[in-house]
Amino acid sequence: SKYEYVKLYETDDRLLPGCWIVVRLDGKGFTKFCELHEFEKPNDLRALCLMDEAAKAVVGEFQDIRMAFGESDEYSFVFSKSCELYGRRASKLVSLVASLFSAAYVRFWPAHLPDTPLAATPMFDGRAVLYPADSTLRDYLSWRQADTHINNLYNTCFWALVQSGKTTAEAHAELRGSLSDYKNELLFSRFGINYSTLPERFRKGSVVIRQRVTVQKQMPDGRTKQKERLEPVVLHCDIIRDDFWRQHPELLA
Amino acid sequence: SKYEYVKLYETDDRLLPGCWIVVRLDGKGFTKFCELHEFEKPNDLRALCLMDEAAKAVVGEFQDIRMAFGESDEYSFVFSKSCELYGRRASKLVSLVASLFSAAYVRFWPAHLPDTPLAATPMFDGRAVLYPADSTLRDYLSWRQADTHINNLYNTCFWALVQSGKTTAEAHAELRGSLSDYKNELLFSRFGINYSTLPERFRKGSVVIRQRVTVQKQMPDGRTKQKERLEPVVLHCDIIRDDFWRQHPELLA
Amino acid sequence: SKYEYVKLYETDDRLLPGCWIVVRLDGKGFTKFCELHEFEKPNDLRALCLMDEAAKAVVGEFQDIRMAFGESDEYSFVFSKSCELYGRRASKLVSLVASLFSAAYVRFWPAHLPDTPLAATPMFDGRAVLYPADSTLRDYLSWRQADTHINNLYNTCFWALVQSGKTTAEAHAELRGSLSDYKNELLFSRFGINYSTLPERFRKGSVVIRQRVTVQKQMPDGRTKQKERLEPVVLHCDIIRDDFWRQHPELLA
Amino acid sequence: SKYEYVKLYETDDRLLPGCWIVVRLDGKGFTKFCELHEFEKPNDLRALCLMDEAAKAVVGEFQDIRMAFGESDEYSFVFSKSCELYGRRASKLVSLVASLFSAAYVRFWPAHLPDTPLAATPMFDGRAVLYPADSTLRDYLSWRQADTHINNLYNTCFWALVQSGKTTAEAHAELRGSLSDYKNELLFSRFGINYSTLPERFRKGSVVIRQRVTVQKQMPDGRTKQKERLEPVVLHCDIIRDDFWRQHPELLA
Ligand SMILES: Nc1nc2c(ncn2[C@H]2C[C@H](O)[C@@H](COP(=O)(O)OP(=O)(O)OP(=O)(O)O)O2)c(=O)[nH]1
Ligand SMILES: Nc1nc2c(ncn2[C@H]2C[C@H](O)[C@@H](COP(=O)(O)OP(=O)(O)OP(=O)(O)O)O2)c(=O)[nH]1
Ligand SMILES: Nc1nc2c(ncn2[C@H]2C[C@H](O)[C@@H](COP(=O)(O)OP(=O)(O)OP(=O)(O)O)O2)c(=O)[nH]1
Ligand SMILES: Nc1nc2c(ncn2[C@H]2C[C@H](O)[C@@H](COP(=O)(O)OP(=O)(O)OP(=O)(O)O)O2)c(=O)[nH]1
Ligand SMILES: O=P(O)(O)OP(=O)(O)OP(=O)(O)O
Ligand SMILES: O=P(O)(O)OP(=O)(O)OP(=O)(O)O
Ligand SMILES: O=P(O)(O)OP(=O)(O)OP(=O)(O)O
Ligand SMILES: O=P(O)(O)OP(=O)(O)OP(=O)(O)O
Ligand SMILES: [Mg+2]
Ligand SMILES: [Mg+2]
Ligand SMILES: [Mg+2]
Ligand SMILES: [Mg+2]
Ligand SMILES: [Mg+2]
Ligand SMILES: [Mg+2]
Ligand SMILES: [Mg+2]
Ligand SMILES: [Mg+2]
Ligand SMILES: [Mg+2]
Ligand SMILES: [Mg+2]
Ligand SMILES: [Mg+2]
Ligand SMILES: [Mg+2]
Repeated sequence: SKYEYVKLYETDDRLLPGCWIVVRLDGKGFTKFCELHEFEKPNDLRALCLMDEAAKAVVGEFQDIRMAFGESDEYSFVFSKSCELYGRRASKLVSLVASLFSAAYVRFWPAHLPDTPLAATPMFDGRAVLYPADSTLRDYLSWRQADTHINNLYNTCFWALVQSGKTTAEAHAELRGSLSDYKNELLFSRFGINYSTLPERFRKGSVVIRQRVTVQKQMPDGRTKQKERLEPVVLHCDIIRDDFWRQHPELLA
Repeated sequence: SKYEYVKLYETDDRLLPGCWIVVRLDGKGFTKFCELHEFEKPNDLRALCLMDEAAKAVVGEFQDIRMAFGESDEYSFVFSKSCELYGRRASKLVSLVASLFSAAYVRFWPAHLPDTPLAATPMFDGRAVLYPADSTLRDYLSWRQADTHINNLYNTCFWALVQSGKTTAEAHAELRGSLSDYKNELLFSRFGINYSTLPERFRKGSVVIRQRVTVQKQMPDGRTKQKERLEPVVLHCDIIRDDFWRQHPELLA
Repeated sequence: SKYEYVKLYETDDRLLPGCWIVVRLDGKGFTKFCELHEFEKPNDLRALCLMDEAAKAVVGEFQDIRMAFGESDEYSFVFSKSCELYGRRASKLVSLVASLFSAAYVRFWPAHLPDTPLAATPMFDGRAVLYPADSTLRDYLSWRQADTHINNLYNTCFWALVQSGKTTAEAHAELRGSLSDYKNELLFSRFGINYSTLPERFRKGSVVIRQRVTVQKQMPDGRTKQKERLEPVVLHCDIIRDDFWRQHPELLA
Repeated sequence: SKYEYVKLYETDDRLLPGCWIVVRLDGKGFTKFCELHEFEKPNDLRALCLMDEAAKAVVGEFQDIRMAFGESDEYSFVFSKSCELYGRRASKLVSLVASLFSAAYVRFWPAHLPDTPLAATPMFDGRAVLYPADSTLRDYLSWRQADTHINNLYNTCFWALVQSGKTTAEAHAELRGSLSDYKNELLFSRFGINYSTLPERFRKGSVVIRQRVTVQKQMPDGRTKQKERLEPVVLHCDIIRDDFWRQHPELLA
């Protein structure tokens, strides 16, 4: 049609080849969304598992995703350096990941929070960031996991203080500027909590990678057959140190 | 932390000021998604209403959206030229619109297709396109609505032929290269269908604008009070000709 | 060759259609360059004419340039909204304008400053800026011309004070924060200078537009023939008020 | 001033950190420019030395340039991965390199072509390309040097044939699709030219790197002192094989 020229106004937003592509999502206004649904503080296991479920849906959909890392209301998806999905068009990748994640979050909500009706529509912003070097990608993931630790230690102390009768202002004041050691000590001496025994999911966030799993397959003749398949699994382990990367050399290969 | 430098790899993707921003979403692989859920052909009223519902959620959320236009598995949202939401960052706008639309689509699915369980997670790609001139924005919208007409006329003929016993190959062959008049005539003479009496939603798509509605508001003292509010409403009217724009001068103002 | 894949790393930097493209150049480190060549202060007529000459070379080369505006060590070139030169690739436009301007500046140097050997290689940075609306383009040009006025009034006072025996620090101190009226008065009462009678080139900068000129053309048979041609000419007039634009309606048409 | 808002229309074009930045220049319409100045075919030593001189001026100006490679009417400048010049703004880098190169080309023209007055203003287009990996940067440079070889071998044959009396069409026809070996043989058997003995500058192009040179410095007291300095030098050597990179490990470090 004579109107088709308007398509020429679209811009080419292909991402530089040869770089890792990280798509990071973050829940919009989740402070309020978590309040509204009375999520447990500081960590609601059901909500975190729902995040992981949505992330697995994304990893399962896009073969070019090497791994993902999630914490709180955010998730980062790492596309391989050689990914050619949609010609590496940034808006395609960012929008599809944000869209699928959000749709899966709503779809799987009842399974994870059966007693909590969804009272608002959740949404996640997204962005694509490029990392040319493997070491910088690792620093990116370390950044997120270090953040998980810092926030979780703080929030654990904060809510322990509040539950013990302090106001939120008092709790903030007590923690302001304090170091890790102080907070660990506070948890132990005042609340009998050994921080390092808290669930790893809370302390380290969630890592999604693909692992070989054996699945029973029903054959047409009634017999079952064992088949191997790569499937997204969720781990809660340290990804800052070298260990993880030595154990999974395929991730950066 | 020492890892924070990785944030510097994010790029500034602010969109040029002074231009209309159109965010267009389109269902990924909806040919298959529609088959899977046995949507009526060529138009499933329930599915189209669900699209409109999701679009209203988006328009309701972002005050900077002036209007939206939808058809088939796609929706375009027009942000005002002076929009400063998220500093006009493209990925923020595109991802949030795609995310909210998708989440709302899943959330409101049961209300619109109560007898059809969701069997796959729908997702929508998104992109932002800039239009510097009002006339080009209108051409953009005309492009989409002309497309609605062309596709719908074709599909209506196609499925009428198929339901009358033709194979899909035969139906395609019969319609290939034919003009509008021919197709209108075919519908009328062979199937007794007067195309222009088909639902406007199918022929013209959906236009979402904000209209002043009167709402009954329950007061604390038990009485009700009438209040005026701007609310997203869905129209199915021509937006190619000048009439619509003369009736809604605020849209381009 | 097997190395050719590296070309795929080039990015598509085509500028949005339908917008004015302004390429602005600015001399790099001209404070030093002007000192080195002992340019007259605050305005060296020879240097400014050389800038205009270089600008005319650029305007003469690229038919898509509608007009240019220059002052001090900078020049802005306005490409028409519909320009399709090099597919509107930003780096092509910016680099070629910067390159040609610089080469012409050096080439025509001896004609304008015959007694001053070039003692360093001048260079100019460049950038492309898009303006979607005609009114914003005019505001851009007004911005530059208002800047010309402000700087020139200040510099005229400054150097008058310095030549009258003040140190540069004293001159700055005296002028800091002062209004236009004060500076005009200072020039008149202390130095007998009526600012508005200073050369328009200094006060208003240079505007390059194309004008129909009559040229004598030597024919093969020895006779001369008059021919009309569009040629870049330099004006020094107000471009902030409407007058100029009313007199040259073709510039924004 | 009230016009200053127009500066907000400038876009942030900072290049991704952690990548090599290659700025490649190429003469605009040099086929015609070389004809006009009757450059020797296929290689004009004076013109190539002038290119190298301009390149040295660029390398001398920007400390972040690690090396440069030139051939024919083009030159590529490699900025280090960690370069922070002008915040890595693409248009700043591209325009300044194009500008300085062009200005130097004109400035040093008389020294290299003393008998040929400049009859047109030369100009060079420029672009910035990012290479995330060292190996890809090397492939880029190999691409340009392989191109030098291919073009030079072809052109040497072509002009030999033309000088021997063939028309340009005949020469093209004879060479079309021929392999390297054929062309080497042709040069040797028909024109007695051993291709590998032609000047390396023609066969391999020019590499500019910084080398430690000893300079005599005149002291205030009249004595001279030896000082070491890094200075741009021009080499004509293979940069495809590993040798060069082993000899200059600092280039990729
Ligand atoms: N109670 C509770 N809150 C959580 C949980 N996970 C995340 N949140 C909350 C804590 C934070 O207020 C919020 C995440 O912080 P953000 O910086 O992303 O802020 P928010 O999403 O409110 O704003 P944004 O739109 O991202 O700028 O989500 C949870 O498991 N339980
Ligand atoms: N049966 C039925 N199909 C519909 C309806 N609305 C949209 N569709 C189908 C028709 C098309 O096959 C598809 C939309 O066309 P697209 O060009 O967007 O293709 P698709 O989404 O398959 O691929 P894409 O991922 O967008 O490239 O959705 C409906 O109401 N009923
Ligand atoms: N004496 C003299 N100086 C002039 C003339 N035209 C321009 N200049 C000088 C005055 C300013 O110091 C300088 C232009 O100011 P800029 O803001 O462009 O500074 P500069 O080029 O030094 O730095 P830059 O590399 O642009 O950031 O050029 C002239 O006609 N005579
Ligand atoms: N005679 C002669 N010609 C040369 C020499 N070096 C370069 N050239 C010419 C040969 C080619 O026609 C031209 C370079 O080829 P390009 O592909 O860059 O073409 P050109 O600059 O004409 O067009 P462009 O504006 O770059 O698209 O310059 C030389 O040393 N001697
Ligand atoms: O943690 P981020 O990157 O989301 O940081 P922010 O402070 O939320 O900034 P923005 O979302 O606006 O980029
Ligand atoms: O209708 P569009 O714009 O989605 O066109 P397309 O042919 O689907 O192309 P793409 O989605 O790849 O831009
Ligand atoms: O006048 P400009 O736009 O050159 O402003 P600046 O302060 O020199 O900034 P830059 O050249 O770094 O954009
Ligand atoms: O050799 P290049 O990259 O200049 O290739 P080209 O064919 O001249 O293309 P363009 O200059 O238009 O990018
Ligand atoms: Mg954020
Ligand atoms: Mg959030
Ligand atoms: Mg968050
Ligand atoms: Mg599409
Ligand atoms: Mg689709
Ligand atoms: Mg579609
Ligand atoms: Mg500047
Ligand atoms: Mg300057
Ligand atoms: Mg300046
Ligand atoms: Mg080229
Ligand atoms: Mg060339
Ligand atoms: Mg070339």
